Amino acid sequence: MSKTYLSLCISLTLFLCVHFLSFSQKLPEANEHFKIGMAGYTYHKFDLDRTLDDLATNQVKYLCIKDFHLPFNSSEQEIAAFHQKLAEKGVTGYAVGPIYMRSKADVDNAFDYAKRVGVKLIVGVPNHELLPYINEKVKAYDFKYAIHMHGPDIALYPDADDIWSHIKDLDPRMGMCLDIGHTARNGKDPVADLEKYNDRIFDMHIKDVTAASKEGKSIEIGRGILDIPALVQMLRKTGYSGVCSLEHERNFDNPFSGIAESIGYFRGVIVATKQ
Amino acid sequence: MSKTYLSLCISLTLFLCVHFLSFSQKLPEANEHFKIGMAGYTYHKFDLDRTLDDLATNQVKYLCIKDFHLPFNSSEQEIAAFHQKLAEKGVTGYAVGPIYMRSKADVDNAFDYAKRVGVKLIVGVPNHELLPYINEKVKAYDFKYAIHMHGPDIALYPDADDIWSHIKDLDPRMGMCLDIGHTARNGKDPVADLEKYNDRIFDMHIKDVTAASKEGKSIEIGRGILDIPALVQMLRKTGYSGVCSLEHERNFDNPFSGIAESIGYFRGVIVATKQ
Repeated sequence: MSKTYLSLCISLTLFLCVHFLSFSQKLPEANEHFKIGMAGYTYHKFDLDRTLDDLATNQVKYLCIKDFHLPFNSSEQEIAAFHQKLAEKGVTGYAVGPIYMRSKADVDNAFDYAKRVGVKLIVGVPNHELLPYINEKVKAYDFKYAIHMHGPDIALYPDADDIWSHIKDLDPRMGMCLDIGHTARNGKDPVADLEKYNDRIFDMHIKDVTAASKEGKSIEIGRGILDIPALVQMLRKTGYSGVCSLEHERNFDNPFSGIAESIGYFRGVIVATKQ
Repeated sequence: MSKTYLSLCISLTLFLCVHFLSFSQKLPEANEHFKIGMAGYTYHKFDLDRTLDDLATNQVKYLCIKDFHLPFNSSEQEIAAFHQKLAEKGVTGYAVGPIYMRSKADVDNAFDYAKRVGVKLIVGVPNHELLPYINEKVKAYDFKYAIHMHGPDIALYPDADDIWSHIKDLDPRMGMCLDIGHTARNGKDPVADLEKYNDRIFDMHIKDVTAASKEGKSIEIGRGILDIPALVQMLRKTGYSGVCSLEHERNFDNPFSGIAESIGYFRGVIVATKQ
């Protein structure tokens, strides 16, 4: 444990140094309840160093950790080294996932992993029959569990309404990751979803889509059909205090320009809707 | 001349094809009077092909032509080939410059070049004593002449007020390229400048800066001190119908992420201020 403590101290010192030395600029979201982050999946073709470089380029401070950047079987030392690397760029790993869970063993592993990583939010895709078991786990661990939605592509959890139907009678720590693109592709209104289910929305995937149907493709924020100003206003109205993580699912081999454009657009909307 | 005509026909056909085949998406600025473009200087380390690729990536349709992409001594055929290349990407070269002019010969060359290129707007940096001569040229050619400003860095034309003092008694076709960053670095308010001098603003350089002083550096739009929502509102109020050309002057060896972020931010502000 003392090694972990030492690592955390080093991480904190490095974080403060980076913070102090960087151009003292206030990000557009600095006065908002919500934060801007990145879904690790966006960088699934790139290693952690390249990922962190791009987060720094885009001044993104929150990362949802995917297992290809930090494997499930990572040791305590590897996890400490991971956090230190993030801290050097001023980045916080705020959650893990999405993690598919098809058995109780998968659930146990995921909760154990999240605990060792030191986060209290899991983004998951659990088989329906596992929900009662997960419901007990969130109580035992005092974690939040955000079910991931995937629109019309797969049957498991297409949209926010579907997830709500499965969690409404469960512990309030059972919620969802609102993917505004996928719920729109399933014919729903993500802004209305945000208002309706705000108590149970623990994470968000921000993106844009070319159409409100199965044929809709993920695209740079602002190029598609979603009403981003309305979304930002609803983030404020509901007081959403989690992370809005960009999940950019286009040009996976070279997503950097699209990421920058999307983050720029989102911040432009944040600033302009303050007026 | 028939060769030029043929080239223009081919260009037009290619433009229409590209236009027709591309994702039928309405750009945020589609319903505005102003357009979004790019100052060629942004890509001064890259050739025309790489430049046009990036304009396509960012859906930018207007380019202010710099001579490193189309040399002053280009032949009629080279100019036609240049326009054809632009048309293949749906890009219009709307002006030439900035061009430094230190003698009457420089002025003659610049006007001759612009005429051969087929644009009616020159962005220039002329010595003061040449202004009466240029004033006669704009009448003879029926061109517009936009004097480029450069803040506190060089004595010639630091800001909009200075340019106005030199052109106010000249032909109304004598105007300026409002560089919102440089005029701000000279202690002026670019939004007020836009309102004050809107009759004489024929081109704009959009950028952001870290400080309203000589020490201020060019930075991605939205990261600096400029009030971009107020600028966009003033573009609407004044009915500015020219191009807002991004002049990104940072990370010249790899400006692409910064360009995408800046264009994204600007478009986010355009959309959000419509509400």
